[in-house]
Amino acid sequence: MAVNETERRAMTRALELAALGPRGVNPQVGAVILSPDGSVLAEGWHHGAGTPHAEVDALSKLAPGAAGGATAVVTLEPCNHTGRTGPCAVALIEAGVARVVYALDDPGAVSGGGADRLRAAGVSVDSGEQADAAHAIIDGWLTAQRLGRPHVTVKWAQSLDGRAAASDGSSQWITGPEARADVHRRRAAAAAIVVGTGTVLADDPSLTARDGDALFAEQPIPVVIGSRPTPADAAIRRHPKPPLFYDTHDLHTVLADLHSRGIQSVFVEGGPTLASAFVAQGLADRVLAYIAPVLLGGDRLALTDIGVASIDAAHRLTVEEWLPLGADLLAIAHPVLGLEEGVA
Amino acid sequence: MAVNETERRAMTRALELAALGPRGVNPQVGAVILSPDGSVLAEGWHHGAGTPHAEVDALSKLAPGAAGGATAVVTLEPCNHTGRTGPCAVALIEAGVARVVYALDDPGAVSGGGADRLRAAGVSVDSGEQADAAHAIIDGWLTAQRLGRPHVTVKWAQSLDGRAAASDGSSQWITGPEARADVHRRRAAAAAIVVGTGTVLADDPSLTARDGDALFAEQPIPVVIGSRPTPADAAIRRHPKPPLFYDTHDLHTVLADLHSRGIQSVFVEGGPTLASAFVAQGLADRVLAYIAPVLLGGDRLALTDIGVASIDAAHRLTVEEWLPLGADLLAIAHPVLGLEEGVA
Repeated sequence: MAVNETERRAMTRALELAALGPRGVNPQVGAVILSPDGSVLAEGWHHGAGTPHAEVDALSKLAPGAAGGATAVVTLEPCNHTGRTGPCAVALIEAGVARVVYALDDPGAVSGGGADRLRAAGVSVDSGEQADAAHAIIDGWLTAQRLGRPHVTVKWAQSLDGRAAASDGSSQWITGPEARADVHRRRAAAAAIVVGTGTVLADDPSLTARDGDALFAEQPIPVVIGSRPTPADAAIRRHPKPPLFYDTHDLHTVLADLHSRGIQSVFVEGGPTLASAFVAQGLADRVLAYIAPVLLGGDRLALTDIGVASIDAAHRLTVEEWLPLGADLLAIAHPVLGLEEGVA
Repeated sequence: MAVNETERRAMTRALELAALGPRGVNPQVGAVILSPDGSVLAEGWHHGAGTPHAEVDALSKLAPGAAGGATAVVTLEPCNHTGRTGPCAVALIEAGVARVVYALDDPGAVSGGGADRLRAAGVSVDSGEQADAAHAIIDGWLTAQRLGRPHVTVKWAQSLDGRAAASDGSSQWITGPEARADVHRRRAAAAAIVVGTGTVLADDPSLTARDGDALFAEQPIPVVIGSRPTPADAAIRRHPKPPLFYDTHDLHTVLADLHSRGIQSVFVEGGPTLASAFVAQGLADRVLAYIAPVLLGGDRLALTDIGVASIDAAHRLTVEEWLPLGADLLAIAHPVLGLEEGVA
């Protein structure tokens, strides 16, 4: 049966509820339980890993039997998987829910199949209602699910001729205020900001996301990669979020740990060595190159070696946008998909 | 007195005549002699260094005394200077010309002052008629006069990270067909194309300006700088214009010689060493950096060392345009004017 106007309004509300939950290992999901006459019986949302899923959170607010014949409106397909909580599909069936309307299919191989299970139990199921809005809320989570790790943005600033600094190491300011403001806005949108110990020791960056002198409400978790110790008085230790330190050069290990912590996106600002390592290992999902109209020459390169011996092995990019920022230009790009990735 | 409609039409014709002359050491100038009743008595233009100036060329077509009371309409202020020819101002006075209308003031310290000399002899003088069009015709000459040498455009193609090639030297094709076509159009507009011997030996370029497989009508003179000999069978020796070879690394000497040959603009495509030398010596009036959306890393840099020790000494550019060309981007830029240049 078609989704009716009451269910549509309930989905809009469920999306608001979803956004109340935290970003993390689990997706943000909201749920509204409607009585057979269309009145709202209960609302729920997922409060984070280890807590009840949204549907169960909503059902838990009802007296036993109160959901008999009800409609559950959920932003994500009810799961069919027993993890730290039982399968939501079963919980809905056992509560006597007669109909489920959800927005997005569950992309998980393990957790999916809830809709089939509901239908097999005689529950009426409709999907796709406000799917785009539901997708937008958990876009970062879906990407990290697909990648099996956080989405990685590698950012650097460079002169037109590809240098990060002059020969003596001086680099303030290669780029102008518009470019720097853009960096801070993008930092604020990332879950973590990653640098190498070399950058910490050389620049003592605060790694905060700032709007002028003020901090943005959202701050990325600072992450330091490398074996050299970070000084006790380093600015990063005064960051509003406690830093994570990884005494390793294995980027896969770092990303796996960040993924397990529910970090969906990282912003790599870490200096030429770290940026080059991410690019060389194919771990740069997005490249942001801030290009200043300056020529420097010399050996302080923004990227060092990325394992390209011949032009055939070049890391080819698709530029999404060449974005002028004051006198500077931001190249926003991602790797050209190889044949196998393009087909997948 | 104001310029009348007949004189205006005569100036339009004089501009057409000017364009018939060759670009070179002298400016392209045209002249029309009008009788007192406004009919055209004679036309002339400057055919190149060592030949009569435009006014004298026109007067030479008239019988003695035929220019008495006439009006001379000229695209550039009549000269007041005795060089390989006598001063045109004197020639006009002696021919009995009663009025002179010209477009542009003569910018030369030596040749200028013709208008004053004419007025002192009682000739009616008006200037500024169609000055913009006259300027456009001799723009390259005026620029070379101001610089005291040809205008220099330094062009290179680079990966986003500033490399001209992969580690093994392979570079075909970093940039795409749109960027390469743009290079050929700009080559055709330059009087000379300059490379180093390293580029000749490594790439054996033809240095022609091509529209697909066809040659453009206008071809730059190929110029090779450096002490290594160019092979007898080098492609450059089959260029439609005979190449010039300079066995020197002194760019000022090369530019002075090109200037003395009437070459007003050069296009430097010469490889990283030569490009860096032009930039380092402040001889790059314009920079064209074709940026391909590719990352290469490694040590094959598009610019090598340009004498910048500290960020304060950076060669700062003003970007006139960030021009997308297919998947590539062309940065069209010129040096930021220093205080002394800005005031001059």
